[in-house]
Amino acid sequence: MATLSVPSSVPSAYEDAEQLRKAFSGWGTNEKLIISILAHRNATQRRNIRQSYADAYGEDLLKALDKELTNDFEKAVLLWTLEPAERDALLAYDSARKWHPSDVVLIEIASTRSSEDLLSVRKAYHNRYKRSLEEDVAAHTKGDFRKLLVPLVSSYRYEGSEVNMSLAKSEAKVLHEKIVEKAYNDEELIRILATRSKPQLVATFNDYNNAFGNPINKVDRTQDLKADPKDEFLHALRAIIKCIICPEKYYEKIVRLAISKMGTDEGALTRVVTTRSEVDMSKIKDLYYKRNSVPLDKAIKKDTTGDYEDLLLALIGQEDA
Amino acid sequence: MATLSVPSSVPSAYEDAEQLRKAFSGWGTNEKLIISILAHRNATQRRNIRQSYADAYGEDLLKALDKELTNDFEKAVLLWTLEPAERDALLAYDSARKWHPSDVVLIEIASTRSSEDLLSVRKAYHNRYKRSLEEDVAAHTKGDFRKLLVPLVSSYRYEGSEVNMSLAKSEAKVLHEKIVEKAYNDEELIRILATRSKPQLVATFNDYNNAFGNPINKVDRTQDLKADPKDEFLHALRAIIKCIICPEKYYEKIVRLAISKMGTDEGALTRVVTTRSEVDMSKIKDLYYKRNSVPLDKAIKKDTTGDYEDLLLALIGQEDA
Repeated sequence: MATLSVPSSVPSAYEDAEQLRKAFSGWGTNEKLIISILAHRNATQRRNIRQSYADAYGEDLLKALDKELTNDFEKAVLLWTLEPAERDALLAYDSARKWHPSDVVLIEIASTRSSEDLLSVRKAYHNRYKRSLEEDVAAHTKGDFRKLLVPLVSSYRYEGSEVNMSLAKSEAKVLHEKIVEKAYNDEELIRILATRSKPQLVATFNDYNNAFGNPINKVDRTQDLKADPKDEFLHALRAIIKCIICPEKYYEKIVRLAISKMGTDEGALTRVVTTRSEVDMSKIKDLYYKRNSVPLDKAIKKDTTGDYEDLLLALIGQEDA
Repeated sequence: MATLSVPSSVPSAYEDAEQLRKAFSGWGTNEKLIISILAHRNATQRRNIRQSYADAYGEDLLKALDKELTNDFEKAVLLWTLEPAERDALLAYDSARKWHPSDVVLIEIASTRSSEDLLSVRKAYHNRYKRSLEEDVAAHTKGDFRKLLVPLVSSYRYEGSEVNMSLAKSEAKVLHEKIVEKAYNDEELIRILATRSKPQLVATFNDYNNAFGNPINKVDRTQDLKADPKDEFLHALRAIIKCIICPEKYYEKIVRLAISKMGTDEGALTRVVTTRSEVDMSKIKDLYYKRNSVPLDKAIKKDTTGDYEDLLLALIGQEDA
């Protein structure tokens, strides 16, 4: 499921740190060497390298990378090198502080991470920013979006597989009523999406489809969450549902839109590749090929260049393709 | 600060379990023996006793206690024996499922526990009830109370001591505006109370007092949260503020009201004694004496009887008084 490739025999964290130090020294920076190390180490190994680097040279590896690298490549290397929870905290921070209604990053983090992982993000947020994630989200959003996003980022969903089928039935009905009334900001609708366990929600969405003849996210445009395709709040609700039903499908679309835009959306591309390389990038690649008839590595090659391209390809496991 | 007294030399958990087993056997139950053990063991020791009891006799100690004991004594022993996070999960569950506007238990748990402890309660809730705390709170509350309680129980407040004084100033102004407008359910007011760190909120309340000439919770009845003393939502807001400013003062009042009622409120008395004995019961006792000119143990003796009385006195450290 992950695409990250780690060699069977990996040097010690100290040796890796030493090689990175070499990559920074002398005239110019050896980006190839940086990629060959960092893009082939898992989260624990990267953390150990960062620790060894700090021990050996008295400097944070991320600071050193920041000094040596530039532009999209720099951003991607920095995001990738961070631990997952710290990386998500940084993405959530940027998203909350510069929040606008079309931004889906908070939704993505709140809805695709496991409950424990989301807690780790909230802890990393405390450590890094000296305040809480929900505090920033509440302070920088308003109205309906605040009503939706604060419970979403604060949720600690139950993760057992138990499903209450009669609850799914009754809540599918509630969702349908609200959607028919176009009461998208209704507190019952938000409560259901923000607090129920994911298996419970999937059962509710299935029941919705069975009972009302169309998926909650699609098809009958008068009575579903696509009623107004330009409404950004509806877009947010659909994103939550997609993230819960099938994160890799959600991410395939983010990558597709990032690449197919006039001018690549490097921010989105970098975010998906760095956050999913150790999770489900291989599924995202499969879905991308099915949906676009072009392999993702080909599409990335066409749209990106240089070290940035090389890093992305390494992280999606297609370095030599 | 705690009143729990643990002897300097404590028997092994297995020996304690054996003694408890003896207390249950034969004709009648030896309540004195149960108190002499459980009321003098800290949370870790009680957990170990529970484990040893299960290992030795193949039965959960709580089930055995449940069979042997009755009424208020039973409830108090069971609550006390649980680990703090599990006990809070149980209290929160009962409160959420039978929720009514005057119930302050959810507020108390959400506002007096540390951020980490509140997370532990949420984890214990998953384990015990196979759903999330916020899910039950959201499903069993409505309207303004839901708007207040869901973010409150889901919060993971930052716990550093950093305070932003200009933010305190501007948010004190926001709170004052909303209170003057009687917009008590305003989302900005709720956001501030539910998400800011406790030191930040204390600074905000101090600034409120300085800028507007009366504490946010008191005195000028036209412009504060006592404007309508019978309004249950205002009562809830005041409870949050009290819990944040000074938990022991909040608890002194709960105990005072529990005892001074016609007919003691054993539920509240048991809750405060079992949840605070290992935390700040000694401060609560001091405040109680200052406020009522009667020592708490005397007041408890007057209002309770038998094993229930003995257990409470043991937990507030006044067994031989």
